[in-house]
Amino acid sequence: MTKPQRRTLKASTITMAHGAGGKAMRDLIEDVFVGTFDNENLNKLEDQARFELAELQAQGQKLAFTTDSYVVDPVEFCGGDIGTLAVNGTVNDLAVSGAIPKYLSCGMILEEGLEVSLLRRIVASMRQAADEAGVTIVTGDTKVVPKGKGDKIFINTTGIGVIAEGVNISAENCKPGDKVIVNGFVGDHGAAILNARGDLALDVELATDCQPLHGLMQAMLEVCPELHAVRDASRGGVATVLNEFAESSEVSIRLFENKIPVRDEVRGVCEILGLDALYFANEGKLVVVVPAEKTDAVLEVMKAHPAGQGSAIIGEVLEGYAGRVLVQTGFGGERILDMLVGEQLPRIC
Amino acid sequence: MTKPQRRTLKASTITMAHGAGGKAMRDLIEDVFVGTFDNENLNKLEDQARFELAELQAQGQKLAFTTDSYVVDPVEFCGGDIGTLAVNGTVNDLAVSGAIPKYLSCGMILEEGLEVSLLRRIVASMRQAADEAGVTIVTGDTKVVPKGKGDKIFINTTGIGVIAEGVNISAENCKPGDKVIVNGFVGDHGAAILNARGDLALDVELATDCQPLHGLMQAMLEVCPELHAVRDASRGGVATVLNEFAESSEVSIRLFENKIPVRDEVRGVCEILGLDALYFANEGKLVVVVPAEKTDAVLEVMKAHPAGQGSAIIGEVLEGYAGRVLVQTGFGGERILDMLVGEQLPRIC
Repeated sequence: MTKPQRRTLKASTITMAHGAGGKAMRDLIEDVFVGTFDNENLNKLEDQARFELAELQAQGQKLAFTTDSYVVDPVEFCGGDIGTLAVNGTVNDLAVSGAIPKYLSCGMILEEGLEVSLLRRIVASMRQAADEAGVTIVTGDTKVVPKGKGDKIFINTTGIGVIAEGVNISAENCKPGDKVIVNGFVGDHGAAILNARGDLALDVELATDCQPLHGLMQAMLEVCPELHAVRDASRGGVATVLNEFAESSEVSIRLFENKIPVRDEVRGVCEILGLDALYFANEGKLVVVVPAEKTDAVLEVMKAHPAGQGSAIIGEVLEGYAGRVLVQTGFGGERILDMLVGEQLPRIC
Repeated sequence: MTKPQRRTLKASTITMAHGAGGKAMRDLIEDVFVGTFDNENLNKLEDQARFELAELQAQGQKLAFTTDSYVVDPVEFCGGDIGTLAVNGTVNDLAVSGAIPKYLSCGMILEEGLEVSLLRRIVASMRQAADEAGVTIVTGDTKVVPKGKGDKIFINTTGIGVIAEGVNISAENCKPGDKVIVNGFVGDHGAAILNARGDLALDVELATDCQPLHGLMQAMLEVCPELHAVRDASRGGVATVLNEFAESSEVSIRLFENKIPVRDEVRGVCEILGLDALYFANEGKLVVVVPAEKTDAVLEVMKAHPAGQGSAIIGEVLEGYAGRVLVQTGFGGERILDMLVGEQLPRIC
């Protein structure tokens, strides 16, 4: 099978949509970055590179390597801050490859005038999140830019993890008949950030779902070493992950709207703003595609794990219509769930 | 011997000095980052973490792991751009540990409104620099911030390299009697950036010295596997590296001013501005401390390598006065070469 042609970037200036996790960002990444750096690892557009290092005489294990810069606004919000996010986000990009996260780097870009007390709180959050996830922040870098040339604090974390022999999780592995599971309420992080910006003036507590997922992943791998595809549904939400799966595996996916766990408060925010929680960012949610015969076993260990108590089967993989994601609505109709076009919610992570 | 106490940060807001590579930045790093993340690897304040991964059954080799964010202004300058810098800077932070650089990640923070043509040039520079250095950019991330919340483009590169068994280069290893060598003209990058900003209105060509140093390092290690200390003299310049060596090894270091290679044009810039080229950033220069008996052999291979043709012995390690760096001036006098205080040249890398 030939893969779809690489997207091209037609824009002449960068807009906020180029960072929003949807089609515009894919155009930018596939044309400019992948088109230029062009190598087997990067071209897969997985959330982490995986490789053996011959020098280390690896015995079947691989290293996983992933990077993320965090520019969330505001930097503190209900349930966490940019530091919590920077650690768990990178831990989770390692975890969903099946890797056990080991080491993180930390690159800080601070804006002149940043309050040191705020910086200390954020760094303390990073330490706490790292301890909880069992990773160590082993190297770092600090830059300061003049006031008005940054925005308080941007954090890059890059992580290294180790993937056991035989684990082969990939967006390309979805097979017709597979089931789609999510590990709990969808859209909490996006709603928490929206609420933290104060634009909604809602009288509700909306906390981020930010949490590390490698423990849950390892429990799942124990009962099903052949998990097909797993991604954490961060920027772009569950909708984006499923579109990536459908495109990479050349299958279609059907979701059952009334099976998708969404909190009432989040549903309310969506109704007010005319938004869809399936596009909302999550920071502690993964979407996993499992062989049908393993569905019950995987769901059981997920529900038994603290990070997966709200797990639910939300869809299935179908043959044909490569790249299409459908939602079966509560009323029996069907709608297409496309990739995000343009910018829904900038600076969500 | 007890190590000097960790520095503390007294400031309540971040100033440009906290990113300038001098004392203020050390206060910030030691107090806030090291004080919080607190682990054996990070606490060494080397430019890269080094570790074995038991899971990989390493046979004496170590991984080196380093991160740097690049915020240089302007983003293009004589002899290179922020992309050239982002690759070579991280390659060199791996190289000076004795590692052979292997893989890089690339985290982009783009400002809304950035011209895509500029981005393409920068990314092409990264690819070219990566090819020249023999590294592959295997994973990446892209964020966009609104206009006025960033400055065109910030790039984080994080790198992984492999250190052969038995190599143990550390800022702590300088011994009285050792010689100090630099691999060519000092201060070129700093002068090139100053000139590119157009404030000087000089009619000279001042190009960055940006180049990868791992080939030179491997040649040096072949004749002297027991190199004592090596660092690339980037932000903060040769003066900062030597102060770090003197402090970490609890020795003093004496430089011979008339042995330090400085281009006439760079000397001119320094005289006009009352600055010292020893504090100017370099992006292709390393300072190496070698056992006296190996000096000639090391110098010879350095001069024979394209990246070391201008190599010169510029100083020696002395007993006593732990942490002090002296410069013997051309007139026979001596002055103390302290760490940078405050901000000399912001956003140099």
